[in-house]
Amino acid sequence: MPKKKMAEKLTSRNKDYSKWYNELVVKANLAETSAVRGCMVIKPYGYAIWEKMQAELDKMFKATGHENAYFPLFVPKSLFEAEEKNAEGFAKECAIVTHYRLKNDEDNPGKLKVDPEAKLEEELIVRPTSEAIIWSTYKKWIQSYRDLPILINQWANVVRWEMRTRLFLRTAEFLWQEGHTAHETKEEAVFEAKQMNDIYAEFAEKFMAMPVIKGLKSESERFAGAVDTYCIEALMQDGKALQAGTSHFLGQNFAKAFDVKFANKEGELDHVWATSWGVSTRLMGALIMTHSDDNGLVLPPNLAPIQVVIVPIYRGDEELNQVSIVANNIKNELELKGISVKYDNRDNFKPGYKFNEYELKGVPIRIAIGPRDIQSNSVEIARRDTLVKSKIKVIKVVDTVKNMLAEMQKSLFDKALSYRNENITLVDSFEDFQNVLNKKGGFISAHWDGSPQTEEFIKKNTKATIRCIPYHYKQEGGVCVYSGKPSKQRVLFAKAY
Amino acid sequence: MPKKKMAEKLTSRNKDYSKWYNELVVKANLAETSAVRGCMVIKPYGYAIWEKMQAELDKMFKATGHENAYFPLFVPKSLFEAEEKNAEGFAKECAIVTHYRLKNDEDNPGKLKVDPEAKLEEELIVRPTSEAIIWSTYKKWIQSYRDLPILINQWANVVRWEMRTRLFLRTAEFLWQEGHTAHETKEEAVFEAKQMNDIYAEFAEKFMAMPVIKGLKSESERFAGAVDTYCIEALMQDGKALQAGTSHFLGQNFAKAFDVKFANKEGELDHVWATSWGVSTRLMGALIMTHSDDNGLVLPPNLAPIQVVIVPIYRGDEELNQVSIVANNIKNELELKGISVKYDNRDNFKPGYKFNEYELKGVPIRIAIGPRDIQSNSVEIARRDTLVKSKIKVIKVVDTVKNMLAEMQKSLFDKALSYRNENITLVDSFEDFQNVLNKKGGFISAHWDGSPQTEEFIKKNTKATIRCIPYHYKQEGGVCVYSGKPSKQRVLFAKAY
Repeated sequence: MPKKKMAEKLTSRNKDYSKWYNELVVKANLAETSAVRGCMVIKPYGYAIWEKMQAELDKMFKATGHENAYFPLFVPKSLFEAEEKNAEGFAKECAIVTHYRLKNDEDNPGKLKVDPEAKLEEELIVRPTSEAIIWSTYKKWIQSYRDLPILINQWANVVRWEMRTRLFLRTAEFLWQEGHTAHETKEEAVFEAKQMNDIYAEFAEKFMAMPVIKGLKSESERFAGAVDTYCIEALMQDGKALQAGTSHFLGQNFAKAFDVKFANKEGELDHVWATSWGVSTRLMGALIMTHSDDNGLVLPPNLAPIQVVIVPIYRGDEELNQVSIVANNIKNELELKGISVKYDNRDNFKPGYKFNEYELKGVPIRIAIGPRDIQSNSVEIARRDTLVKSKIKVIKVVDTVKNMLAEMQKSLFDKALSYRNENITLVDSFEDFQNVLNKKGGFISAHWDGSPQTEEFIKKNTKATIRCIPYHYKQEGGVCVYSGKPSKQRVLFAKAY
Repeated sequence: MPKKKMAEKLTSRNKDYSKWYNELVVKANLAETSAVRGCMVIKPYGYAIWEKMQAELDKMFKATGHENAYFPLFVPKSLFEAEEKNAEGFAKECAIVTHYRLKNDEDNPGKLKVDPEAKLEEELIVRPTSEAIIWSTYKKWIQSYRDLPILINQWANVVRWEMRTRLFLRTAEFLWQEGHTAHETKEEAVFEAKQMNDIYAEFAEKFMAMPVIKGLKSESERFAGAVDTYCIEALMQDGKALQAGTSHFLGQNFAKAFDVKFANKEGELDHVWATSWGVSTRLMGALIMTHSDDNGLVLPPNLAPIQVVIVPIYRGDEELNQVSIVANNIKNELELKGISVKYDNRDNFKPGYKFNEYELKGVPIRIAIGPRDIQSNSVEIARRDTLVKSKIKVIKVVDTVKNMLAEMQKSLFDKALSYRNENITLVDSFEDFQNVLNKKGGFISAHWDGSPQTEEFIKKNTKATIRCIPYHYKQEGGVCVYSGKPSKQRVLFAKAY
């Protein structure tokens, strides 16, 4: 029987973290690069994880009164300009559609060329985000306070012409959701922006088992066009921070740019208050980098497409049949409890190959069953995060698996939380700042004078940026770690993805 | 209290079917045109129906072993050319990305222009369908028979630069799913193509309550690049046919165009066999046109986002409170049975306004509760398709609603089936063909000599095309309705969307 070559070992995280990540994404069959520069193919296993993320987030959005809708992929240049006035800082690197027809190239048989006669009067931008197209639509929908609030979310693809791309973390095209809401009052909009950031945090911690710090962005890290940007920040195993989600209080900026007014309860015209918020396939990168190890992916059970894999150990059909009876019974019982199980009885791969494969793919629990297990009414059960194996009586398998999944979900979170907390370092001098950043990494909690100039200087000289001004940090007087000027509270700096 | 203007009556179907459709789509809040030529905004209510369609189809795809994945939005022109050789007939009207950056227009402050220095070396086509990008990827995935079958589906947006567009039925950008599978043998691929067409038919009949005829396309109606195209065809209320889904047996055409070979079990290299299949937001148009009436949308319960709406009739807070207790009890009990219920207690709209609104939006069942109903322990229940109202004791509401929803689902299908069957006319002369087509419309079942020339002549002279060669039609000798040449079986002609 032909045998697939055993996958080579991953580069270790210590040796080259970045290489480890790139290899892992490809070898675990999550995604790969495509024929289009900067665009990725999300493979079925990676997409199945994304689908689980989508399903949970979508439930949370709907439970808070949001509805899904769909807006056009393209933004006419003129709408982009209207927004641009409002958001000068927004990058202009984007995919631009200028023509609408190909034709046969007379000079090169079998080749096609752009038909110069099919030039668009106005260029179309492939959406990098949808504020412009959505607010030009909301203008038609909103006349009075009774048309508010509008609480809409969109699941979509967006394109930003990034020069340096990495699978999931930064790609030219990526998948995301973008919420766009319209409100009568400032208070409502602020509440909404904070609420959605809280939902992102809850999702990250409960499902991704990834601890996050909630906070506000500084002015220079804020979304251009936002009055305030709320965010959740996570820490990866290499000591770099990753912005996992943002929620923007947009004030009346977009309403003014697109002239969206409503008659309030007093009959007066006022501009609408707005928010927008989004998370993307970047979360896949965060998930991978938070838990995985040198053997491959480690998935929190709550997002694992396959929670339990059963591998039969056998020689010949008779043994396989015996093992299969037990395996299928266990599979059925686990599925009745809502646990997703794969029984891998492929005949052309050896158990050792399968063990490696599921380790690489981060399946939380592996059950192996051989003829001796049948004799002793037991199975071997292995947990992906700890790699600990144990023998369990068949009768106890369902309870053990249930508990183990819950325990693993919690344990992954706790482990990531300890690591994160150990890697928040308080510093009070710029020398310490640089030392900690270069030797230890992680978040640096330091006083900052609040000026963009100081922030810019620190960024230029250390590559660290202000990740967020955490909600939970107390107001306390201090002196800026760089300028020595007065500071009101500490903020979190880090190098970031 | 400000009162919203009552929506004007829809144009009736008899007066102007096309206008009726356009008005209905907009007034029922399903979709509207956007600032981008030919692209639509799918509004929350329309999108909620699409989401229900997606959920059911996705379940059916997964139950037959398919997985979802995601491939890039863009297709490099060179890949498009490789496919083009294979599929000369494919339209070249598509959106073409030529540049990747905007810059400030020095001559027009506040305006942007395309940066001429940011011209792409190779133009990118916004995918009109993904065979090219997917098969260039499969080439990397497939070496041996053990890598087969590949059973992948993608939910995505696609763009075709249509000149004449109509909401849902034909738009420049639309949402769809596209399945792309790769197989070892011809038999497997043919089985897959037929299976997916059967799944489309089952979905159309079971969920959309829309009867369809399954069949093969004639050569000239076939997808360019396919060996055989299977399809489902439905009949709209204006006597025009609508192609609701297609499934293509692609033979080895794409494997050859993209050089995808595999080592078979005998160790020999062979080209892979392929299928592709898709349905789109066009199904929304089909759903609307199959059941709706002059009062608005009629939705089959299986796809209705709101299956039951409860409207309180009251004066003053005390009456509202009394009614709300009963209404909320009913709502809870129905929801326990998995029925989706909306209790519309908005205070700034009158009951009559609400009745019209939900009639327009096609909510299957409306329950009205007033103070007199409270006295008599009853409610008024109205069924959207028949518009019949009846009084029901509160204690019987849950059973009545359950039965009524099931009955309505069946009745909508039966009604559409009768209409469809009454509008299949057998004709045996070209004169009858023309008469029936112009006076009655619908499907015409006629003998055809099998030649593309005859088909083309009939199309030119009558605007009718061969919709399909039905599976279930018996092989029977006859003479072609146009040429008088021998024919093997009848086929179905119609004017079509």
